[in-house]
Amino acid sequence: MRTVIESVPNISEGRDAESVAAIASAVRAAPGARLLGVSSDSSHNRTVLTLLGDADGIRAGLLALFAAAVPRIDLTRHRGEHPRMGAVDVVPLVPIRGATMEDCVALSRDVGAEIASRHGIPVYLYEDSATSEPRRNLAEIRKGEFEGFGEKMKDPRWKPDFGPEVPHPTAGVVAVGARQPLIAYNINLGTRDLAIAETIAKAIRSIGGGFRYVKAMGVELADRGQVQVSINMTNFKKTPLHRVFECVKSEAERYGVPVVGSEIVGLTPAEALTMAAEHYLRLEKFSGDQVLEMRLLEEGE
Amino acid sequence: MRTVIESVPNISEGRDAESVAAIASAVRAAPGARLLGVSSDSSHNRTVLTLLGDADGIRAGLLALFAAAVPRIDLTRHRGEHPRMGAVDVVPLVPIRGATMEDCVALSRDVGAEIASRHGIPVYLYEDSATSEPRRNLAEIRKGEFEGFGEKMKDPRWKPDFGPEVPHPTAGVVAVGARQPLIAYNINLGTRDLAIAETIAKAIRSIGGGFRYVKAMGVELADRGQVQVSINMTNFKKTPLHRVFECVKSEAERYGVPVVGSEIVGLTPAEALTMAAEHYLRLEKFSGDQVLEMRLLEEGE
Repeated sequence: MRTVIESVPNISEGRDAESVAAIASAVRAAPGARLLGVSSDSSHNRTVLTLLGDADGIRAGLLALFAAAVPRIDLTRHRGEHPRMGAVDVVPLVPIRGATMEDCVALSRDVGAEIASRHGIPVYLYEDSATSEPRRNLAEIRKGEFEGFGEKMKDPRWKPDFGPEVPHPTAGVVAVGARQPLIAYNINLGTRDLAIAETIAKAIRSIGGGFRYVKAMGVELADRGQVQVSINMTNFKKTPLHRVFECVKSEAERYGVPVVGSEIVGLTPAEALTMAAEHYLRLEKFSGDQVLEMRLLEEGE
Repeated sequence: MRTVIESVPNISEGRDAESVAAIASAVRAAPGARLLGVSSDSSHNRTVLTLLGDADGIRAGLLALFAAAVPRIDLTRHRGEHPRMGAVDVVPLVPIRGATMEDCVALSRDVGAEIASRHGIPVYLYEDSATSEPRRNLAEIRKGEFEGFGEKMKDPRWKPDFGPEVPHPTAGVVAVGARQPLIAYNINLGTRDLAIAETIAKAIRSIGGGFRYVKAMGVELADRGQVQVSINMTNFKKTPLHRVFECVKSEAERYGVPVVGSEIVGLTPAEALTMAAEHYLRLEKFSGDQVLEMRLLEEGE
């Protein structure tokens, strides 16, 4: 597989295991997409699927997902803690290897147009695919949620990028967009003082004056007697893991608090780790092609 | 590809480009082996090929290599700086992913027996495949080289593991064996004083009292006005890159010399880099399965 794109569609069903299984097996049956994971949260009443494939494979997998999810998920009956606006709520497309952001933007437009025409669902392009600044931000699009969308769409600024100008009666609307890979990265501190984790989280996150591609908050780890700076890295190429790690370490030292460890939750592109190795080992002239396993991916079977 | 084994056979031809090309294309035509690289050295008069595949693919690739190389390379006419004992001189088999050292030992016995029977070449199993202690060490086996092997083999301690008890008249003998991946790793120092690189090399290498899986020497980098500790890492799992890097950095500091950078020459398994990231980022509970691209390799096409 020369080209690797990741898609992590979120669907508004996390309680009915039978529906989730039917949707997952529809995706699995699509040619060229590989379903790596299915993770349901019942309090959110929401499921995240992880798909890998080239552009054609991802397209086929997502179309299969919509075909299976739209008749099975009725948002008029959906209750859950997580805000949502669609049966398939959001479809991120992420370039991993051999694909550019532009390739993913093109794919989002292609898939978006197809979903609108097949299912009559309004589609909003978001993040790198957005056609206007307010649409870059998913939370901004989702504001009002399913119940408020009929009203919201009367405003011409919320005319969708594809599809009808009213929400689908049971499936609502969907956001489709290209974005950078997201890494969930947590740094654990050897103290019980939550205020320290919160202060450091504020210092490193973009809105607090910190790194541009960092979202962070302080979290208590009661069972460990520690606290955690819980981080979303939204662009590890421009704000790399090691820079954030070193910054948190330095801030924590100021309070006499050690960094006990860090953790990557879920998946990460290999490059996020090799960048850390390059930094600390001061590697010169290093290229990802020097990694044996990457050569296997590149040259195809 | 679930199982990945690497083989880096060395053949005693590095000057006749036509012969090298014919041998390489024979390997390329073998089913299931992928030829990643062919690197010839004309002063050594020697070529290193890099193959990846599962056990069957590597076996097919190596048998194709012998079939093409044995009639084309005549050691009675071979001159070169590098010591050699065979037309195909040495065949290392390296477990990379989903294969154990035992799998590679079994493959070395299988391939060795087949080569002996097809070509009448004596085969010595070396390193992890060795059947006696002196045969672990390739240099020990190669002592006497092609010209001296007729005499050497009269000693019953040098009866081969497979094949006749006299060398092949033009192809000599061959060593086949399983070993850990080798990483060529250099650390560059901000000084022109070669003695410092030599002193540090002595300190970190196994025979000088240093790390068990490190071979090292000091080298001058005249064009950069620097010196280098040039290292062969023979088992990066037990002696990892970062430990050697930190040790060299600390030794260099004692002379007021900075570590300017380091470099990995050629290929490396992904794990050698993720181990460095794990160390410096103090990653907890990290598993190679969290690397997206590795998941692709695991699950096959």
